[in-house]
Amino acid sequence: MTTMDQPAILTPSQAREVFRTGETPVTTSGWCRGYVQANLLAVPRDLAFDALLFAVRNPAACPILEVTDPGDPYAREVAAADLRTDLPAYRIYQDGVLAAEVPDVTQYWRDDLVAFLIGCSFTFEAALATAGVPLRHIEQGRNVPMYVTSRECRPAGRLAGPLVVSMRPVPADLVDVAVEVTAGYPAMHGAPVHVGDPAELGIADLAFPQFGDSVEFETGDVPVFWACGVTPQAVVMASAPPFAITHAPGRMLITDRSEESLFT
Amino acid sequence: MTTMDQPAILTPSQAREVFRTGETPVTTSGWCRGYVQANLLAVPRDLAFDALLFAVRNPAACPILEVTDPGDPYAREVAAADLRTDLPAYRIYQDGVLAAEVPDVTQYWRDDLVAFLIGCSFTFEAALATAGVPLRHIEQGRNVPMYVTSRECRPAGRLAGPLVVSMRPVPADLVDVAVEVTAGYPAMHGAPVHVGDPAELGIADLAFPQFGDSVEFETGDVPVFWACGVTPQAVVMASAPPFAITHAPGRMLITDRSEESLFT
Repeated sequence: MTTMDQPAILTPSQAREVFRTGETPVTTSGWCRGYVQANLLAVPRDLAFDALLFAVRNPAACPILEVTDPGDPYAREVAAADLRTDLPAYRIYQDGVLAAEVPDVTQYWRDDLVAFLIGCSFTFEAALATAGVPLRHIEQGRNVPMYVTSRECRPAGRLAGPLVVSMRPVPADLVDVAVEVTAGYPAMHGAPVHVGDPAELGIADLAFPQFGDSVEFETGDVPVFWACGVTPQAVVMASAPPFAITHAPGRMLITDRSEESLFT
Repeated sequence: MTTMDQPAILTPSQAREVFRTGETPVTTSGWCRGYVQANLLAVPRDLAFDALLFAVRNPAACPILEVTDPGDPYAREVAAADLRTDLPAYRIYQDGVLAAEVPDVTQYWRDDLVAFLIGCSFTFEAALATAGVPLRHIEQGRNVPMYVTSRECRPAGRLAGPLVVSMRPVPADLVDVAVEVTAGYPAMHGAPVHVGDPAELGIADLAFPQFGDSVEFETGDVPVFWACGVTPQAVVMASAPPFAITHAPGRMLITDRSEESLFT
């Protein structure tokens, strides 16, 4: 067993225990193979309708796995998890500006926060690997690269902003496999939103992702882009609500739900 | 062409024009063959988060097709329709009590209302008919029967209440066909929630539906139950919010969206 395999065979509750003690890996990609991972967005009750409607109107970017009751810091459906401590790292946004990145948000939690857990493309990576699609960011020990695109999401109330995508280099002759495999996971962003030229998404340079790490291409790889659950963070930055908590991009909630349970 | 076929070949906008003039057929089942029909729930902005979360938590009963912006009385995605006039009939609920059934809600509309359009099982009836499954309520010129069950929905905030189901008698040897056909329409309630003994859903007597009409069984028919978009009305009755507008059960918004567009 290599060091890289170790996180893969932890149970989700073991992984959350690791994160609860304050350890923050560069990414949870590759952790707890076969289990669903989730993005986090927590906003005050006052903004919760807009946030939920935004998710409903943008299901590719924001497939909803669970919504907590106002003030309840616990996930209860997809995992028995304390959302204040059980993710590796969090971001605090104030008036749309990143105010802090922290391993624990206990001191930031508020009684009126509603948390949205949103599907994550890390979930289908095990299926991609099984189908023979290499995952360059995992091979290279990096976070997946994420880019803010020129595509606007459908707005909802006070929330508007651009679509964020994750990108994986895929060998040209395996793109059809990658599309087919991921189309089976609509709750995890589903099929790619774009294959090929980054300029068509308004991405100037793949070497400079807005979130995560840049990843090296191998000969014959083409870029494949999936809608990404970091979209709410770009929307928070664009819409500047007074307060929001999110996960740190690429460092997700690992749930107790098996990947197969969400395959359709 | 029989009289019964006439509504089937109207376009959705022609049908809405008929309803706008005040005509209120016993049901829109069988109208505008091949087009999506929708349930309506409109609640004040104050209750909109709870209502949207209720729908998200109960997707079989409340698959969301469109949510309007607060105060906007027009559907803009699934149809170009005035939601105050373009349905055949409406119900007004005050404190959870049915206060009026009217063909037009212009005088009841409020600037803070958010309208939810929810998928309807009438949509897959054309596909059932094509697959050879007879539709007894249409043969008998009646509304589909709907029953309040003993199954509780997952609550959301101030909204809680029982699941409502629609029931269609299906010849025993065609039940598998009915299941298979309707499973392809998750945005229209999808596969049945139950087949057979009504008592298992807490339904005492099929002859007395809480909504719609009772329907005669033919020899060899068994009852098949689908989650129903009238569920929000039972929830309004159980939870007694101050104000809500719904469609009259069985008399739906007929949208411009083709049935095929929602088949998955």
